[in-house]
Amino acid sequence: MTMKRTLLLLLSLGFILIFAGMAVAEPIDSLPSWNDGKAKQSIIAFVTKVTNADSPDFVPPAERIATFDNDGTLWAEQPLYTQLIFALERVGRLAPQHPEWKDREPFASLLKGVVGKALSGGEAATREIVMATQTGMTTEEFEKIVKDWIATAKHPVTKRLYTEMVYQPMLELLSYLRDNDFKTYIVSGGDVAFMRPWVEKIYGIPPEQVVGSSMKTQFELRDGKPVLLRLPELVFYNNKGNKPVGINSYIGRRPIAAFGNSDGDLQMLQWTTAGDGPRFALYVHHTDAEREWAYDRKSSIGHLDKGLDEAHSKGWTVVDMKQDWKVIYQNEMR
Amino acid sequence: MTMKRTLLLLLSLGFILIFAGMAVAEPIDSLPSWNDGKAKQSIIAFVTKVTNADSPDFVPPAERIATFDNDGTLWAEQPLYTQLIFALERVGRLAPQHPEWKDREPFASLLKGVVGKALSGGEAATREIVMATQTGMTTEEFEKIVKDWIATAKHPVTKRLYTEMVYQPMLELLSYLRDNDFKTYIVSGGDVAFMRPWVEKIYGIPPEQVVGSSMKTQFELRDGKPVLLRLPELVFYNNKGNKPVGINSYIGRRPIAAFGNSDGDLQMLQWTTAGDGPRFALYVHHTDAEREWAYDRKSSIGHLDKGLDEAHSKGWTVVDMKQDWKVIYQNEMR
Repeated sequence: MTMKRTLLLLLSLGFILIFAGMAVAEPIDSLPSWNDGKAKQSIIAFVTKVTNADSPDFVPPAERIATFDNDGTLWAEQPLYTQLIFALERVGRLAPQHPEWKDREPFASLLKGVVGKALSGGEAATREIVMATQTGMTTEEFEKIVKDWIATAKHPVTKRLYTEMVYQPMLELLSYLRDNDFKTYIVSGGDVAFMRPWVEKIYGIPPEQVVGSSMKTQFELRDGKPVLLRLPELVFYNNKGNKPVGINSYIGRRPIAAFGNSDGDLQMLQWTTAGDGPRFALYVHHTDAEREWAYDRKSSIGHLDKGLDEAHSKGWTVVDMKQDWKVIYQNEMR
Repeated sequence: MTMKRTLLLLLSLGFILIFAGMAVAEPIDSLPSWNDGKAKQSIIAFVTKVTNADSPDFVPPAERIATFDNDGTLWAEQPLYTQLIFALERVGRLAPQHPEWKDREPFASLLKGVVGKALSGGEAATREIVMATQTGMTTEEFEKIVKDWIATAKHPVTKRLYTEMVYQPMLELLSYLRDNDFKTYIVSGGDVAFMRPWVEKIYGIPPEQVVGSSMKTQFELRDGKPVLLRLPELVFYNNKGNKPVGINSYIGRRPIAAFGNSDGDLQMLQWTTAGDGPRFALYVHHTDAEREWAYDRKSSIGHLDKGLDEAHSKGWTVVDMKQDWKVIYQNEMR
């Protein structure tokens, strides 16, 4: 930048800030989709105290790390995790190249449309489907596959794009935290490579602030051009006790606030709240069978049992979606 | 923050910026410890073009990722990597609790002061020493051990603190890049947990921008308090082809500039320069036997052979420390 440009920029910024300052008059509601209630109040009280330089609870901006689970916390996860739906749809698309799948479970059932039977093999079956459909290509090829799919695929029940099933109140919460100099991270059990292609646009969270599970990748030179190949081996499963492990490994700082919706997030909330100074933990509780889904202790997806008990006993914030949220999804009319 | 405080802050900032703008007069040299020459010119030319909004080579700030190797690139690595010296010194300190070491290699030789013999077992011996001295404690305990050691330990030859053996020209380069909205990362073969406790203070690089090797860690509740335990298993060795893997895993974006000093950095430089648009790769070449050390193709520490050839054939920037740097270490008189 030339000196003259710098000078002009600084002068302009100066005037803009002065006018902005003069325009500040009334406080605005940063969380308009949240009903007034304990959950909203607890969030605002926490942010207010850690950002008040005169408060004993003040936290310097660099340490304002907030971590968010993704599935069921920032967007919907029913009737199946989106990444699993993506995998199931890819089985159909890849089937012509895999004639052997007709006679091999879990693929055979999937191709017959009997999803329940295909997934009855539990985690092993799920993992086999994910590996068969989401590895074997370069990281750049996979990125393109995800981008293309997420841009057009529709949810089987709502018929919305999956990226239109992100929770409006949580988007406001992310912005509110960032406006208060928090650094917001995703800490999800999903594959980082499935999230990074779209989360920046949707959540405002850049790729380097996404922590997730990861496949083994291998550096190779192909005709002199370096590529990273995705191999069918899960090297890190970022769930339960591994969420603090992932946070420590990727971020290297303990968050001061953490947000989840299932027992898979419990250790992240424990780890976050066990640090010194002010800490905040929040569970999103799925209580709205009409506008979204209602599930907790008996659900295999988003199973929330021990976490709910611990939230109550430790006084963590529990969001009752039905009571606390004016709207559920982005672009929904209030 | 109250409205009144916000108002005052904005007004003050506005006036400060106006005065700052008026004070801008002459360009200042951001790299005063670099002699004028090809290396310095190539750095400035690259930064100038990617930050010029009118240039076809303009890169938006979010994509200005710069990755730096640590050992031999940002600080000295001779006669042994600092983390290895740390490990060797811990053998002496822990020996009273390990009577069996007296009769077991590589510990027996170390305790007799015969370092060369102890390390003759190569990578296996090194790894055994590191595991025996740097795992088995919690992440917080290890952080304290590193902080205490790095605050007082002196280099065997220079008698300086290790943190005083960081290269002044590279500190200026880090600041220069950040002043131009680059995000600076360390991408090192060293253990992240050995770097994070001190790199923010020394390099201005926060913990979340350090990519390195890592030990397996395990979440545990101890008397209800969560801890992360360091286990004696290397889960990721961030060197050679794994540097692009680590970059992809932790950052999720391809850097536009990369800085190294050995063949262990070659794949990172290849990966960085293979992206679209303007790219920059730089090797620090250790050529100054008087002020530092001179080594390259025949050295086991900081081995630079293929990388040097590729740098020449591809026109990457090669820093000749003797010719290009006015001073080597921080706080050295020019």
